[in-house]
Amino acid sequence: MKIDHIGIAVRSIERSLEFYREVLGAAPSRRVVVAQEGVEAAMLPAGGPRIELLQPAAADSPLARFLEKRGEGIHHIAVEVDDLDAAAAAVRRSGRRLVTDEIRIGAENYRYVFVHPKDAGGVLLELIEPLARQSAGKAAR
Amino acid sequence: MKIDHIGIAVRSIERSLEFYREVLGAAPSRRVVVAQEGVEAAMLPAGGPRIELLQPAAADSPLARFLEKRGEGIHHIAVEVDDLDAAAAAVRRSGRRLVTDEIRIGAENYRYVFVHPKDAGGVLLELIEPLARQSAGKAAR
Repeated sequence: MKIDHIGIAVRSIERSLEFYREVLGAAPSRRVVVAQEGVEAAMLPAGGPRIELLQPAAADSPLARFLEKRGEGIHHIAVEVDDLDAAAAAVRRSGRRLVTDEIRIGAENYRYVFVHPKDAGGVLLELIEPLARQSAGKAAR
Repeated sequence: MKIDHIGIAVRSIERSLEFYREVLGAAPSRRVVVAQEGVEAAMLPAGGPRIELLQPAAADSPLARFLEKRGEGIHHIAVEVDDLDAAAAAVRRSGRRLVTDEIRIGAENYRYVFVHPKDAGGVLLELIEPLARQSAGKAAR
């Protein structure tokens, strides 16, 4: 188990960056829009797992609904796994749900799927697998 | 900025460990009771920042109130800083609040203080400094 990043839901990335700059001296390495999730993201390098600030890019996005319901705060934890297909199958086999059964490809060159927080002790847990490793694995089989 | 651990509020460490074992193959390295915070904690090593499962050890603890209000889920992020006294002073100087002004010593040999979530974009942010480094720093001054 290796934590890749922690996602934090914010109303304004700009305003939030002020906090991380002033309190932790952190600055974003990258900003991307992830259209399929309706979010804009800023990545804060942290010498290991990053902090991902997430701001809604669409009013009807799950992130916009999260902010409406819970306000700003920690949104999800992303953990890297060796084999995402196997991990997703294991979740389903154990009777737990995924948020979507379909595995998606993110803006940062990894495949991902979310375990449903109702089956993960209230944590929105993202399972990810870097694409490069996945291709290497497939080639070796 | 370096993330040290992610704290997750759970009603039962035992039940929660089942999830982390089955889905992520993770097992706890250590269990401690932190009397001053009214919590019992289990640490899950994650090849970098750990996951800290937190269960109330006292009915009137802040963690018990968190669970009552928000249910199980991600509770806090702990970030290691170089100089905790300077970081805490910077937070106060910027007009932001700490949960307690007093810096405490944790069960795992570090000093810590929490930034108030209302002043940290809804995130309960723990600032920590390992005790060994702090002694070394003080000795060098």
